[in-house]
Amino acid sequence: MRLRVDLLPRGEYGDVVVLIDVLRSCTVAPILFDNGLKELYLCPSLRTSRKAAAEKGLLLLGERGGLVPEGFNYGNSPTELRQVNMAGRSAVMISENAPKTLPAVAGAKHVLLGSFYNADAVMARGLELATEEIALVCCGFGGEEDLDDVLVAGYLAGRLKQRLPEASPLGAGWMCLSLLKTFPDPLEALWYSRAGQALRRLELAGDLVVASLISRSDKAPRLSAVTEGERASLYRFEAVPTPHPAVPLAH
Amino acid sequence: MRLRVDLLPRGEYGDVVVLIDVLRSCTVAPILFDNGLKELYLCPSLRTSRKAAAEKGLLLLGERGGLVPEGFNYGNSPTELRQVNMAGRSAVMISENAPKTLPAVAGAKHVLLGSFYNADAVMARGLELATEEIALVCCGFGGEEDLDDVLVAGYLAGRLKQRLPEASPLGAGWMCLSLLKTFPDPLEALWYSRAGQALRRLELAGDLVVASLISRSDKAPRLSAVTEGERASLYRFEAVPTPHPAVPLAH
Repeated sequence: MRLRVDLLPRGEYGDVVVLIDVLRSCTVAPILFDNGLKELYLCPSLRTSRKAAAEKGLLLLGERGGLVPEGFNYGNSPTELRQVNMAGRSAVMISENAPKTLPAVAGAKHVLLGSFYNADAVMARGLELATEEIALVCCGFGGEEDLDDVLVAGYLAGRLKQRLPEASPLGAGWMCLSLLKTFPDPLEALWYSRAGQALRRLELAGDLVVASLISRSDKAPRLSAVTEGERASLYRFEAVPTPHPAVPLAH
Repeated sequence: MRLRVDLLPRGEYGDVVVLIDVLRSCTVAPILFDNGLKELYLCPSLRTSRKAAAEKGLLLLGERGGLVPEGFNYGNSPTELRQVNMAGRSAVMISENAPKTLPAVAGAKHVLLGSFYNADAVMARGLELATEEIALVCCGFGGEEDLDDVLVAGYLAGRLKQRLPEASPLGAGWMCLSLLKTFPDPLEALWYSRAGQALRRLELAGDLVVASLISRSDKAPRLSAVTEGERASLYRFEAVPTPHPAVPLAH
């Protein structure tokens, strides 16, 4: 089994991809499923999202430049969305980084959304699905590498390596593992990341705290369909609890 | 003026490239010029290096897997080479990372070798030469990103940004700047890097200490010619003291 870490998408992906956008899409996604959501569409386009919401009766989630667009039900603050019952609902969420990275990885057999918040769940699901490779792919910030996702990749790589002792991390895996040693507190990496600085300027530092919590969710959202919209694709994710919630990986 | 940071070479380079391989080629190179070397050839091939040395009367420097090859005059330990008078000599040095990265950047107008050891010099020279862009390009370790070069890039990017306040770092620039905040001591990043770990296993930790010294040399080695050898290219570097040694950049 290969274990690969890419600080941004690079090349082809054939087996399992864990897409990492810890601030905030991949932290929010497992929270929504914990709260009862049935399916989540990710999309970078406001117009396509609005149209899909009208056609399919979806909740509209997300933000642009820190503001909740007109007519949206909620932003994409994990602090806020933890309090919202989503039972039986479906939603579409716009955000910047994850939806723009999805086209580069959607060709893989399995695409999961991962963060600190669902670390154990996404690792268990990844190990269950993978036959050749688990690729941890960071979304970065504005198309460039960012520290928050890189540290999550390091955390997941370190834990996966315990389960795959024969796997030598490829790509930036070793660099991420080195970084981990200097960040005993995941919150610190989020704090200094560009994404984290942007949220702090919006007085959303509470979201960093939620995003730094480890393995609070047993949901590993998984890409189940891609449909073409007018301006952008819609990526549908579903999640079931991990099959082995009672067997946490060793810390 | 653009300021760009690439954790590995990526795409085309047109103006100034500062190539970073802090452990150890780009630390050793300014040391050799400080000690009187006239010209330095970098080359990845043992055979091509030996042939060039025989033809041109060059000193043979470098190592393979931590061992000094048969017939070589010296390894490439900065600790050792600081003690060696090179007055009037020329040398060819084999190493792994910098020579293998050179083909990706050699198309730029100006290619300089940079590290902590010649930080002020390489920045002054880069600012003098650049008309459009200074690209800080890390060599990494074995073709993958490594922490040591990334931290040097962050250090140089932070200092260059003081001189280019209008420049917004492109590529991984912001991530490197974030990392700097968590590494007040450059030695720590070298220590945890893969390259650093490899040197520590060879009982060469002293080389990390030399490589962590900041701006001890006023030489910015600059690519002056590329010649095709039998198995690999030879990259010739020359260095003159920086034009403004008495105007150090503000720390």
